[in-house]
Amino acid sequence: MEIFERLESEVRGYCRDWPTVFDEARGSHIYDESGTQYLDFFAGAGSLNYGHNNPELKSKLLDYLVGDSVVHSLDTYSTAKREFLATFDEVVLQPRGLDYKVQFPGPAGNNAVEAALKLARKYTGRDTVISFTNGFHGMTLGALSVTGNSMKRSGAGVPLGHAATMPFDNYMDGQTPDFLWLRSLLEDSGSGLDKPAAVIVETVQGEGGINVASTEWLRGLADLCQEYGILLIVDDIQMGCGRTGPFFSFEHAGITPDIVTLSKSISGYGLPMALTLFKRELDVWDPGEHNGTFRGPNPSFVTGTAALNTFWRDGEFQRATEAKGEIMQKRLAELAEEFAEAGAVARGRGMAGALAFEREGAAEALSAEAFRRGLLVETAGPNDEVVKLLPPLTTSEQELERGLEIIAESARATVKIPQLA
Amino acid sequence: MEIFERLESEVRGYCRDWPTVFDEARGSHIYDESGTQYLDFFAGAGSLNYGHNNPELKSKLLDYLVGDSVVHSLDTYSTAKREFLATFDEVVLQPRGLDYKVQFPGPAGNNAVEAALKLARKYTGRDTVISFTNGFHGMTLGALSVTGNSMKRSGAGVPLGHAATMPFDNYMDGQTPDFLWLRSLLEDSGSGLDKPAAVIVETVQGEGGINVASTEWLRGLADLCQEYGILLIVDDIQMGCGRTGPFFSFEHAGITPDIVTLSKSISGYGLPMALTLFKRELDVWDPGEHNGTFRGPNPSFVTGTAALNTFWRDGEFQRATEAKGEIMQKRLAELAEEFAEAGAVARGRGMAGALAFEREGAAEALSAEAFRRGLLVETAGPNDEVVKLLPPLTTSEQELERGLEIIAESARATVKIPQLA
Amino acid sequence: MEIFERLESEVRGYCRDWPTVFDEARGSHIYDESGTQYLDFFAGAGSLNYGHNNPELKSKLLDYLVGDSVVHSLDTYSTAKREFLATFDEVVLQPRGLDYKVQFPGPAGNNAVEAALKLARKYTGRDTVISFTNGFHGMTLGALSVTGNSMKRSGAGVPLGHAATMPFDNYMDGQTPDFLWLRSLLEDSGSGLDKPAAVIVETVQGEGGINVASTEWLRGLADLCQEYGILLIVDDIQMGCGRTGPFFSFEHAGITPDIVTLSKSISGYGLPMALTLFKRELDVWDPGEHNGTFRGPNPSFVTGTAALNTFWRDGEFQRATEAKGEIMQKRLAELAEEFAEAGAVARGRGMAGALAFEREGAAEALSAEAFRRGLLVETAGPNDEVVKLLPPLTTSEQELERGLEIIAESARATVKIPQLA
Amino acid sequence: MEIFERLESEVRGYCRDWPTVFDEARGSHIYDESGTQYLDFFAGAGSLNYGHNNPELKSKLLDYLVGDSVVHSLDTYSTAKREFLATFDEVVLQPRGLDYKVQFPGPAGNNAVEAALKLARKYTGRDTVISFTNGFHGMTLGALSVTGNSMKRSGAGVPLGHAATMPFDNYMDGQTPDFLWLRSLLEDSGSGLDKPAAVIVETVQGEGGINVASTEWLRGLADLCQEYGILLIVDDIQMGCGRTGPFFSFEHAGITPDIVTLSKSISGYGLPMALTLFKRELDVWDPGEHNGTFRGPNPSFVTGTAALNTFWRDGEFQRATEAKGEIMQKRLAELAEEFAEAGAVARGRGMAGALAFEREGAAEALSAEAFRRGLLVETAGPNDEVVKLLPPLTTSEQELERGLEIIAESARATVKIPQLA
Repeated sequence: MEIFERLESEVRGYCRDWPTVFDEARGSHIYDESGTQYLDFFAGAGSLNYGHNNPELKSKLLDYLVGDSVVHSLDTYSTAKREFLATFDEVVLQPRGLDYKVQFPGPAGNNAVEAALKLARKYTGRDTVISFTNGFHGMTLGALSVTGNSMKRSGAGVPLGHAATMPFDNYMDGQTPDFLWLRSLLEDSGSGLDKPAAVIVETVQGEGGINVASTEWLRGLADLCQEYGILLIVDDIQMGCGRTGPFFSFEHAGITPDIVTLSKSISGYGLPMALTLFKRELDVWDPGEHNGTFRGPNPSFVTGTAALNTFWRDGEFQRATEAKGEIMQKRLAELAEEFAEAGAVARGRGMAGALAFEREGAAEALSAEAFRRGLLVETAGPNDEVVKLLPPLTTSEQELERGLEIIAESARATVKIPQLA
Repeated sequence: MEIFERLESEVRGYCRDWPTVFDEARGSHIYDESGTQYLDFFAGAGSLNYGHNNPELKSKLLDYLVGDSVVHSLDTYSTAKREFLATFDEVVLQPRGLDYKVQFPGPAGNNAVEAALKLARKYTGRDTVISFTNGFHGMTLGALSVTGNSMKRSGAGVPLGHAATMPFDNYMDGQTPDFLWLRSLLEDSGSGLDKPAAVIVETVQGEGGINVASTEWLRGLADLCQEYGILLIVDDIQMGCGRTGPFFSFEHAGITPDIVTLSKSISGYGLPMALTLFKRELDVWDPGEHNGTFRGPNPSFVTGTAALNTFWRDGEFQRATEAKGEIMQKRLAELAEEFAEAGAVARGRGMAGALAFEREGAAEALSAEAFRRGLLVETAGPNDEVVKLLPPLTTSEQELERGLEIIAESARATVKIPQLA
Repeated sequence: MEIFERLESEVRGYCRDWPTVFDEARGSHIYDESGTQYLDFFAGAGSLNYGHNNPELKSKLLDYLVGDSVVHSLDTYSTAKREFLATFDEVVLQPRGLDYKVQFPGPAGNNAVEAALKLARKYTGRDTVISFTNGFHGMTLGALSVTGNSMKRSGAGVPLGHAATMPFDNYMDGQTPDFLWLRSLLEDSGSGLDKPAAVIVETVQGEGGINVASTEWLRGLADLCQEYGILLIVDDIQMGCGRTGPFFSFEHAGITPDIVTLSKSISGYGLPMALTLFKRELDVWDPGEHNGTFRGPNPSFVTGTAALNTFWRDGEFQRATEAKGEIMQKRLAELAEEFAEAGAVARGRGMAGALAFEREGAAEALSAEAFRRGLLVETAGPNDEVVKLLPPLTTSEQELERGLEIIAESARATVKIPQLA
Repeated sequence: MEIFERLESEVRGYCRDWPTVFDEARGSHIYDESGTQYLDFFAGAGSLNYGHNNPELKSKLLDYLVGDSVVHSLDTYSTAKREFLATFDEVVLQPRGLDYKVQFPGPAGNNAVEAALKLARKYTGRDTVISFTNGFHGMTLGALSVTGNSMKRSGAGVPLGHAATMPFDNYMDGQTPDFLWLRSLLEDSGSGLDKPAAVIVETVQGEGGINVASTEWLRGLADLCQEYGILLIVDDIQMGCGRTGPFFSFEHAGITPDIVTLSKSISGYGLPMALTLFKRELDVWDPGEHNGTFRGPNPSFVTGTAALNTFWRDGEFQRATEAKGEIMQKRLAELAEEFAEAGAVARGRGMAGALAFEREGAAEALSAEAFRRGLLVETAGPNDEVVKLLPPLTTSEQELERGLEIIAESARATVKIPQLA
């Protein structure tokens, strides 16, 4: 690992928690060079909802590459892009009654967010975007300005503007009615909040620590946006593609965002790809007004198409996710009870789960112990106080139980130790 | 193509110039669905320096994928990343005496630029970054603020700040000494230019229309930066990886930038990948301060490693590029002479070439005609007044001559028509 | 009045409500050209706490001018400035145990605010300043960014940044604990609120509609600032100089702001003058770092000194203000009761009073009627829903009763009319 | 002076150069407490064009105050304001064919500048304002963003945006054609300069060191603005009111700015007052959109009216100023020659004059020596390398000669000393 330490920037992060060199991966398992097997409940921070190297997707990808199909096509038309669009329309948009236009904004989630913010500002002619406490939307300057994390914000090196932060659901522990503050600001022409172009929200905050917005809160937010003529952007980069059960995480709330961002698992194979979706009438872009080199990653289109065909043509996959999600949430709730003295709380929706600890350092110790026991789980939240579970949705029940058992064991081995000081 | 028009955002661009659906590609040729063959002098805007689906790279990529090697690994350590780093160090950095740290900032060039800007601002504690007329660095908010194009800038929807534009080499046709304006501003404490964190420059402006900075100018810029304690960022996203001959486009000038961005052809296969390189002492990043989902695109690392091994272990590839570059520049010069009445001028370095026309619409007409004749060449420059040639560096001499001939024929068929009005 | 309409910008405001030409003024009365007398409960928006043309101050001013004493001295030392400083120190600062340095930032309140914001940012090295809903601090770009009024904000023509708005006391009608939102943001490193340089607050919001911050709330704010290392700026431009009883409006709360701004009545005679006061250790200004032409308005110093000597050497003036304030508040409470059906509410502290109406247009109608009856009272609040009373503090009890009676009559003549639509 | 040092902020400036306490003043002379007489060639940085305590103006002011005329009237109509407006129209605007609306933006020059910038941005819907190297427009955040001085800029504590700096006339010593850079940026849609709302310029830069824009350059600038639909703001705060000869400093160039700012000598007596003038069609202000407490300083209106009546009803005053200006410029040219070895250069127009020195410290030494010899002259320019002369325009020829003689003597006593190191 000397070469990483000598050559790779100090900015590297996950490798510090999991100091080994990964090599192969299949389904829910990843292997390091020494052949050690890890159960992967991290799943590329939600980029591998269908597991590593899913055989169906792999087969399509290999066929595509073997046949010298076009790999890089910028934003020209390609066969692979047409198949993706047609499949996305047929499998995702039409069944849900969503009349969205599709933008390929670049390969990364932050490209999808930047395009969403630009479009919302252009369409409305306003500049302020409302984001929420502990929201996470990316590291490019526009996306960073709507991201909560202070360490990442200060990395900008310039003041971040054109944004205002509002309380996420239950942020103040029910001590104040939902949207009281935001609604007050919007209603009051003397509030100091300039009329916003848009609101950007995650239905379940991933990096923020699996903070789950209730259905009611999401509906309230959508209503508020409509009432005041503010665009609603749902950033579904981490929670979309089935993570919470349905394809889009906002489906259960019965809302239709004006703009949706997708990335991470949209290619299905861990390959870079992102989408910005928006209501047809919002498509006020001029040709080429937002561009970028990797807007046509055909291999990603191919695996993305295969993923839609494999998992989303009927409701089976969603049902299975929800069933396994229930198992996971139930088990986490039990663990939260077991570790109540460390202030443990279970959170989650679908197969996005978390154990949050009040006791400082507990989550990090648990995660480190789990690694030693062959399980990858990351910590999240503003103070890394949350153990976050994002197993592949294709994880078997048995694997799921095994992973949860390692968490339980790791907790017992670390959290139970009486806190010093 | 109906589905594209119905579903894809109006922001799509290149597909409007080349209204067909591409399917397969090999070397310097790309084929549409009807089997029509096109000679590709666009090369993914410089992302395909080694041609489409290079067999050596393809073989490595297929092996990697077939073996279920890890595809997505965020910024954990992987075998593929280690091989890339070791090869990059051995083949690129060490022979050139460059003691750079390597950051994987995300999959796109704009990620590399955003990371560069953030780091420069963090390191210096200053906020202004100097960019140059007709510079292009990307569409995310930070990158856009140092990009010249007014149409793209206005897409931001917010004023773009923390930047100042300066004249690129020969911008004012030699009517003013190099750096007179910039040096005046830096020397004068009453100039209104706050001391900059950095300068960001392309040695040859790609999107700006193949504007070539002279060796002298680049050295003068590097000296000026050193004199005033300003970091020099070379954005080598389009001109790096051998486009102008050497691996880095700044090598011929004998300068060592403080920060370098690479993307486009760094994966060698058209797959998304980007690097930010910087002098060891600039590595003041905190762990995780800049992150992102697709910082570990292992398939890109695999093809990127293969590309370095295949093309850069000796000087042969560079020499061949330079030789073909001379052919290209010579032919372009002849064409410029032939079309002098349309104000044609040849520009270029290595295998980045251009014919610029004073006559309005000439470049676009030429490009459209070339498409009809089976050649892809894009237009560039602030008013699309430039026909820009970026053939794969692996293009054979015969293919190169053929492409240049199509350009000549297309020019004769379009530019020669006496201008109306 | 034709010349005003022809030559003066449409931006003019008060003259539209009081369409006459004023000529002379004494004490609490002002006279128009036709000799009509008005009782002035507007007092230059709080600039005439000692009434118009107070004889003591006038005498000193005339002596000064007659003797050819220096009028304009920029920021050189002058006899008049020394006398002002010495008197201010002896009469105001020392008795209150305030070890403040004094800055003469320019002639207007906005100059005092701009200097305060600049100093707070320089001292802390941070950029965000927290302001409050319906706060008002001035029209220059820095002051405007911490002002709530949306119409005035949009006049900036550029997005206003480096500020965040927070709820003023009782803004959400007690539905949420004080400072719950602000404290949550400050405690949470993922909140999206960058650590603030300062908080700027009015103890009683004047332009905002005489919104009174409770003693508890002010203490809570001061504690919060201290706990988090944030500077507390009290903008006492409208409420200082005795308007609420004591010289500074924050005295009753027992807090010591880090920075205080004063203007309006500090010259005592309606002449332009402003002060920025700050704790000694905050005086990190470089010589000349903030300058301006009218920082040494000696006539203002002379009348300001006379005002301090006349009114503030003992506690009599404060006691009289408080007594008259009680009369005023009591009478306003009675009126609120009388006009309860129009949603009338009384507000105030000391001789800053208000009647707020829920019924749309009621306040404006009342104010217009009062003008017809010989009383100047302005409307305030985000929707001009408040009749605001700022009688000179030197107003006699009889004049005060008379003014309040006109308000009652005007209310009866306008508000009582059943609301249409 | 102990009380100043103990109580007044370290930001104080001029008092450090002239460490005495001023007391009385008449015409071109000012006296300190000990009775020492100084010839005042500083004139309140151009605020005392008619000298100290001019008897005509004084008489009108005393009459006004004695009669208990209204002093503070915010922006209601007053007799004094009407007289000022009517006189200004008759004496200044109409004879020059200027169809300007008049805004009273607040008492200070920065208020006039802030109003001008806001109006230009509102009217055009654009945000960038072009300013010039070594321009000075004030210390409030908007004005500061178009000011060149780096020390003052850094006092802002936040990055200053929405502005771009361009070379003032002859900034690059004739090495580049006028406006080559600005015109290039405006013509080129890829330049990175967003289309500006306005240009703000001083015809002679005061704080910048008496840098004189030529008639040709000013006309070129006006033409360029018209060609590109950019508003031309002339900041005539220091150079207006006759300083260069005519009432407005731009008259000799035959241009008509879209917006003009006036302050300093507009009240004629050193009292705070400012005006923003603009073409009738630009008056898109909403009522009250820009406000402020001291917009109706009636004593300033009274002396301002008297000044117009006394000095500007015929051309005599202008002719006298121009004649004395010639004497001054001639004498300065001689001195420049005498001190050529110290790199002395004479600059000026009308009665704004300067001696600039290349030799470091020369100007400051000269100014200090002049003070010891009874003459107040300030230094200016980015490095205080300029001795700046702004004698009252009412200075007699004899006084002028005497002052110039003191400068000569002071130069001989200081500059002639061979430079060390």
